[in-house]
Amino acid sequence: MPPNIFSPLSISTIIKIHQKKKTKSTMSNDETPIRFGIIGCAGIARKISRAINLSPNCTLYALASRSIEKAHNFAIKNNLFSDSLKIYGNYSEILDDPFVDAVYMPLPTTFHLQWAILAAEKKKHLLLEKPTALNVEELDKILDACDKNGVQFMDASMWYHHPRTGKTKEMILDSNLFGQVKAIHSSSTYAPGQEFLENNIRVKPDLDALGALGDAGWFCIGSILWAMNQTLLMTVTVLPNVARNSAGVILTCSASLYWEKEETVATFYCSFIAHETMNLRVYGSNGTCYLYDFIIPFEEDSASFNFTSSAKFVDLHIGWNVKPQVVEVTSQLPQEGYMIQEFADLVKAIKVSRSKPEIK
Amino acid sequence: MPPNIFSPLSISTIIKIHQKKKTKSTMSNDETPIRFGIIGCAGIARKISRAINLSPNCTLYALASRSIEKAHNFAIKNNLFSDSLKIYGNYSEILDDPFVDAVYMPLPTTFHLQWAILAAEKKKHLLLEKPTALNVEELDKILDACDKNGVQFMDASMWYHHPRTGKTKEMILDSNLFGQVKAIHSSSTYAPGQEFLENNIRVKPDLDALGALGDAGWFCIGSILWAMNQTLLMTVTVLPNVARNSAGVILTCSASLYWEKEETVATFYCSFIAHETMNLRVYGSNGTCYLYDFIIPFEEDSASFNFTSSAKFVDLHIGWNVKPQVVEVTSQLPQEGYMIQEFADLVKAIKVSRSKPEIK
Repeated sequence: MPPNIFSPLSISTIIKIHQKKKTKSTMSNDETPIRFGIIGCAGIARKISRAINLSPNCTLYALASRSIEKAHNFAIKNNLFSDSLKIYGNYSEILDDPFVDAVYMPLPTTFHLQWAILAAEKKKHLLLEKPTALNVEELDKILDACDKNGVQFMDASMWYHHPRTGKTKEMILDSNLFGQVKAIHSSSTYAPGQEFLENNIRVKPDLDALGALGDAGWFCIGSILWAMNQTLLMTVTVLPNVARNSAGVILTCSASLYWEKEETVATFYCSFIAHETMNLRVYGSNGTCYLYDFIIPFEEDSASFNFTSSAKFVDLHIGWNVKPQVVEVTSQLPQEGYMIQEFADLVKAIKVSRSKPEIK
Repeated sequence: MPPNIFSPLSISTIIKIHQKKKTKSTMSNDETPIRFGIIGCAGIARKISRAINLSPNCTLYALASRSIEKAHNFAIKNNLFSDSLKIYGNYSEILDDPFVDAVYMPLPTTFHLQWAILAAEKKKHLLLEKPTALNVEELDKILDACDKNGVQFMDASMWYHHPRTGKTKEMILDSNLFGQVKAIHSSSTYAPGQEFLENNIRVKPDLDALGALGDAGWFCIGSILWAMNQTLLMTVTVLPNVARNSAGVILTCSASLYWEKEETVATFYCSFIAHETMNLRVYGSNGTCYLYDFIIPFEEDSASFNFTSSAKFVDLHIGWNVKPQVVEVTSQLPQEGYMIQEFADLVKAIKVSRSKPEIK
C-alpha cells in the first residue's frame, strides 16, 4: 500500500515547502557566467536548458543522465551539444566536477532527498524541481544541508519570476485599488490521457507519490499562498472529490484554505483528468484580479491579467460602470530565463561577494 | 435569536427552490398583451417595470405599494405614469382587480408565503422575486397554491433568459467541444458598504433572513445547478468562512457541492463584503467556459463568454496552441425583457389555449 498521500497533512506539506523558496535577487558586477549542471534529462530539462542558454549570466556546462547515451542523445536532440559541454553517465560524477557551480535537478521527487543533499555537500547551489520533497521532514533535511554548506536553494516554480507576476502583486498590494484579499480561487488541470494516468512518473507511488496534488496542485497552493503573502495560520478543509488511480495516487482533488483572522477563504481544484486550465482569481474588498494562464502564459513574449477596481452597477443595475482592464506585461526572456537569471545572481553574490544564501 | 439560517439545510433549500423554476416558452398567436401588476415598489421593480414596457407581449397595468403615495411617487419617478396605469395603496386590492393577469412580486422574502399564496388564489400568475421562499416547506405551499389554481409560477432570476446563457449551454452540452463537466466555480459578491450591512432588508432576520446566501448565493447555487443540468444527488460541504452581522444574518459564505456519480465538484463564494464579481467557470474534460458577468452583463446589448476547447501546450511547454475564444451574443431586449416575454407567453398559452402551467 502507498502511504497516505492525501490528507490535510500532505497539503500542509506543500504549504510548508512553499515557505522555503527564496526568490530575492542580489546583483553582482562580476561578468563570469555561473556554470550550470543538469542532473536528469527529464522533459522539463529541455525548457530549462534553453532558459540557461538564453540567460546572460550563466552557461550550460554539464549534463548528467543515468547513462552517457541518454545524456548524449538529450544534448543532440535539443541542440545543446558543443565542445565545452560535459556529459556524465551518472549523477555522482557531475557533482564531483569542481567547475559546476550550480545544479538544476528535475529528478522524480522520491530521489530528491538523496541527490539534493549530496549536491549541497558537494557545494553545488541547488535549483530543485517541484514538488521539492515528499514531505516537510525531507525538505528540512535538504534545506539543512544547503544551509550547512552555504549553498543557495531555490524551487523551480517559474511563474513567480515572470514580470507579470510582480505587476499583479503590485496592483493587489495597492489597497486603494484592491482593498484586502477576501477570497482566492485557483485551478491547475490538464488531461494527458490514459497512458499517462497509468504509466507516467507523476502517478507512480515510488516516484512522484503526491500525484496531481504535488504536480498541478503545487501551483494552486503556491498561488494562494502568494496572494496571501505567505501567511501561514489557516484551516484546511479537504473536499470529497478525491480521485486516485489503482496504486492510490491522487488524480484529482480540491481543498479549501481559510484564514480566520483575515477572514479570507481560498479554494482550489487540481486534476489530471480535466481540460487545461491555469486560473487564479483573487477577490478583494475593492478590486478583482484574474489570471487565466498564470503557470504557463499563452504566449512567451507577453502576458496579461484582468483587473477591476471600484466596479459598480450603472443606474437600474443594467450594466457595470467599468469593464475589467487588461494589463499587458511584456517580457524579454522566457519566465524560466528570469528564474535562472535570478538564481544565478544569488549564486554569483555568494561566489563573488561572499554574501550569505538568500533565505526567504 | 434568529433561526439557524446557515446550514447545509438552507443550501439545500435554495437547491430545491431552483428545481421549481419553470422556463420553457410556449408561443401563442393571440395579440392581447398580458396585463402585469407589480406588488411592492422595491428598487428592482424599477428594472422590471422597464422590462415589462419593453416586452412586446405585455403591458404594465397596475402598481401597488403599502400606500397610494408610495406607489404614485414610484410611478412618477420612473416615468411609468399614464392614464391607464392603476395605482393601489395596498396589496389586497391589486389582487382583487380582475384585469390583472399576472403579478411580479419583489416583496421581502418573509412576506412571500402570505402574498404569493393569496395571488395564486386570486388566479394571478406569479413572477416571484428571489429568494422565492425562506425554506422548502414555504415554497412547496406556494407551488401547491399555484398548481391548485392553475396559475403559472416563475422565479425572477433573469440571467437564465439571456440569449448568452442558451448559447453557453449549447456549447457546454457539445461533448466533442467540452467533454463532461468536471468542476464548477461560481462567485457572486458586492460590497454595498456599512449602512447596507446594518440596515438593508437583505440583512434583516425578519425580512430576508437568508442574507448573502439568499441574495448573492442564490445565483451561485443556481448557476452550479444549471451547469449540472439540475442533477440533485450531491454532498454539500459548508466551508468555515461564514461571516454574520450582529443579528446573525450571513454576510459571506462559501460551500462545496460534490456529485459522486459524476465525479464533479463545485465551489462557490458569495459575499456582501467583497468587490463586485459575477463569475462562473465551468471546467470540462475537454473544454473550459468562463463568464465574468453572468448575472448582470457588463453591457445590455451584447454579452460574451470565453470558451476554450482541446487546448494543449506547444512544444517545450512555453505557450498554448489556442487562446480562449470570445463568444459574443447580441440581445434585442434587456435580459429581464426576455424573462418577462417568456413568462407572458406561458401565461398567454394558459389564458388563450387553456394549456396547463409549465412545470419544469
